[in-house]
Amino acid sequence: MFKARSVLVTGSNRGIGLEFVKQLIQLPNPPEHVFACCRSPENAVELKNLVSENPSLKVIKLELEDYTSIEEAGKQVEQVVGENGLNVLINNAGYFGVSEMNEKLEDVTPESLTKHFNINAIGPLMVTKRLLPLIRCAAQQGVGDEMSASRAAIINITTKCASIADNGSARMYGYRTSKIALNMINKNLAVELKPDNILCVLMHPGWMKTDMTGPNALITTEESVRPMLDVIGSRRREHNGLLFDYKGNLIPW
Amino acid sequence: MFKARSVLVTGSNRGIGLEFVKQLIQLPNPPEHVFACCRSPENAVELKNLVSENPSLKVIKLELEDYTSIEEAGKQVEQVVGENGLNVLINNAGYFGVSEMNEKLEDVTPESLTKHFNINAIGPLMVTKRLLPLIRCAAQQGVGDEMSASRAAIINITTKCASIADNGSARMYGYRTSKIALNMINKNLAVELKPDNILCVLMHPGWMKTDMTGPNALITTEESVRPMLDVIGSRRREHNGLLFDYKGNLIPW
Repeated sequence: MFKARSVLVTGSNRGIGLEFVKQLIQLPNPPEHVFACCRSPENAVELKNLVSENPSLKVIKLELEDYTSIEEAGKQVEQVVGENGLNVLINNAGYFGVSEMNEKLEDVTPESLTKHFNINAIGPLMVTKRLLPLIRCAAQQGVGDEMSASRAAIINITTKCASIADNGSARMYGYRTSKIALNMINKNLAVELKPDNILCVLMHPGWMKTDMTGPNALITTEESVRPMLDVIGSRRREHNGLLFDYKGNLIPW
Repeated sequence: MFKARSVLVTGSNRGIGLEFVKQLIQLPNPPEHVFACCRSPENAVELKNLVSENPSLKVIKLELEDYTSIEEAGKQVEQVVGENGLNVLINNAGYFGVSEMNEKLEDVTPESLTKHFNINAIGPLMVTKRLLPLIRCAAQQGVGDEMSASRAAIINITTKCASIADNGSARMYGYRTSKIALNMINKNLAVELKPDNILCVLMHPGWMKTDMTGPNALITTEESVRPMLDVIGSRRREHNGLLFDYKGNLIPW
């Protein structure tokens, strides 16, 4: 069961991010604070509707390529959580260049590689860097060396496409390289923040029916996020640094 | 034993790259053409001296962040190898931000991440893209489905630091993320170019005493490159897409 006092979700205006927010506020013991970050709060109609019925929900502007917006978002979260800090950061926002789905070596461009890397690797890392003091603050209120989302956790949403071992179909150079960079970032964080008892876990949400994917997708966002929240809630010290699918199965590097 | 008609090495003005060139031209059966690529041929004193005694050696300007130079280098190689194509491309040039050696999350900058990614991931991929027609040309002259450096191979020089499984000390965000991106690129190439019988292999050269490393290095460039050439020369179809150290040991992802 997922239980945390405060949770921040990036890319929460649609797809998995929106579903995370919906399910978090509907939990039997919902978080006191859910921060729904997105690029254009003014256009996030569904989030706006949710806010009107849920005072625990706060919509915040955050754009992964705009570091000023990351700084500003950090300040807003700080003001709300105060000394309790932030328990869970879900780095969900990402980019997938649909037109690169079938790209071969001849089609690869530096522009596509750069855009994917900026959004999928540098972005989440900069968000994590900004929020680290708040996450540390939450971690310090836990007991002993326990590690869990109830204390402090950084959840990085990645993809099975970023498994070298699993890669049997090539293509998607930008998506694969940027997401495997995120996997390495998660491992770095897991090692570096272990003394702080901050759990760092990678999640593959499954092939979902979102704006990003096509008709080949297998599950709905609801079918992905429901088990994923349980998996995140049940991760402990022994899972730190690893990659799981939404059902809790370990995915090889 | 390493044997190939033509070999191109990037970053060959010093360190491992220079050592590759030296040992290639000293082989009992040296390549007909060795292309030593570097950013500033005019300043590459050691390469210049080698050229004067070795007509098989050609020094070519190539800068990983300058795509015009990659295009120009491709044209020069084309003119020399003609219809025989290029047998072996060794993507050796790379970047390691020494000042990031001990960087923690608080120290990470987008600039460092970008520079590492540009040079260590995008650069080698753009070089490979430009030279692919020449490598394909060499591959087409082989027999059946054999795969080896004697036919056609892309060798990507990476690092054990880019192994998530092996990462127990964190730090070096830019170096680790860019080199693991290169590992994914190699796997993509291995899958994509398998029907062309082009071998794609990653090599970890060991901790060498070069300008890039410090006094903790374990071996000289000569002690790295000598066994590495043998390992490259003995890689076959079953090794395609994998990562080996300079002694031929498999490194996990």
